[in-house]
Amino acid sequence: MTNIPQRTVERFFRYCQFLHTRIEAGSEFVFSHELAASVGVSPEQVRRDLMNFSLKGTPQKGYSAGEFLRELYAHLESSSRTNVVLVGTGNLGKAILSYFNKRRPNLSIVAAFDQDPEKSDRVVAGCHVYHISQLEKIARDQKALVGIITVPAQSAQEVAALLIKSGIKGILNFAPINLRLPPEIFLEHIDITLSIEKAVYFARQSKTSKELQK
Amino acid sequence: MTNIPQRTVERFFRYCQFLHTRIEAGSEFVFSHELAASVGVSPEQVRRDLMNFSLKGTPQKGYSAGEFLRELYAHLESSSRTNVVLVGTGNLGKAILSYFNKRRPNLSIVAAFDQDPEKSDRVVAGCHVYHISQLEKIARDQKALVGIITVPAQSAQEVAALLIKSGIKGILNFAPINLRLPPEIFLEHIDITLSIEKAVYFARQSKTSKELQK
Repeated sequence: MTNIPQRTVERFFRYCQFLHTRIEAGSEFVFSHELAASVGVSPEQVRRDLMNFSLKGTPQKGYSAGEFLRELYAHLESSSRTNVVLVGTGNLGKAILSYFNKRRPNLSIVAAFDQDPEKSDRVVAGCHVYHISQLEKIARDQKALVGIITVPAQSAQEVAALLIKSGIKGILNFAPINLRLPPEIFLEHIDITLSIEKAVYFARQSKTSKELQK
Repeated sequence: MTNIPQRTVERFFRYCQFLHTRIEAGSEFVFSHELAASVGVSPEQVRRDLMNFSLKGTPQKGYSAGEFLRELYAHLESSSRTNVVLVGTGNLGKAILSYFNKRRPNLSIVAAFDQDPEKSDRVVAGCHVYHISQLEKIARDQKALVGIITVPAQSAQEVAALLIKSGIKGILNFAPINLRLPPEIFLEHIDITLSIEKAVYFARQSKTSKELQK
């Protein structure tokens, strides 16, 4: 299975998350309808997805959570370790370092960078913070594949260019700005402020329509 | 303009962000092609959007950034102040409190909550943290409209139910779990771990296809 579409990849990772939660909670087996409910897709979709795997379930117990997880990771090719770097160690950058590291055994944020010399040469959540002037050398040495951008909007484009120059192939951007990148670089954008504003806008609409119904 | 579609609302908020950046940088005017490039949409789309507003631009100077911003906010109805609450004051919750507050004059996170008594009764980034047992009373008193969930996956559904019981109409969920909510509640989901995993997956694909081309 090559070139899995983006939505399928997302669904597969959501299955992984749910299976991790199940295993941590001490359950060895899972039913397809539980997967469907937890991931928010139809049971038919789960059954179609399961056809890609050589899993054998039983009507009594369902599927082995551990076996399914191994098969998913084999498909998602994440058995080899991937190195990630993060640029910008303000509050958001620090939170991501503390939140993310050790959540996935095969992914790790190996280095963080900041342009402020006072924020460099320290350790945050187990990750060394370097001055940004060392980014290219360290990212190349570590063969970093993905860069996380948590700098202010006005520096984000410049940081993205530096990451690409350092061999990065995917960027997760938290800065509230639309980055312009070459087409071969994968870009994922998380704009927290925009999401809060959207939630407020639609929450207001919902409130107004409720009041009109009264 | 009522019932603006979700994509349009998102685009309008992106225009607002860009206009804020321009004004902060000391520019009074903006051209439609600059808006298009910064927001990542076509110039035709920007021109169609502009037809909703009674703005007058000139070919020499473009549009007044301040006037456009006022018109956008009037459309987005965000002239009145909206109160937001946040549940879960771990690293991510703390980062959102520090990052978001004071970014938007009409939106504020008025209270934060935690189930850990040791994390309650303190102030984080100017926001008071209360024990979760006080959520319903405070959210109602403050007429909070939106709730941000930054608790671990296993508590998120329960917290969502409590927020809805407290009169919340929109939820921004950061927990890596698919929440089941009544249809009238607006849900926005940001899954940071999933986004990192997706970026890694597609960065690997891009790297492999490059290597195959060699």
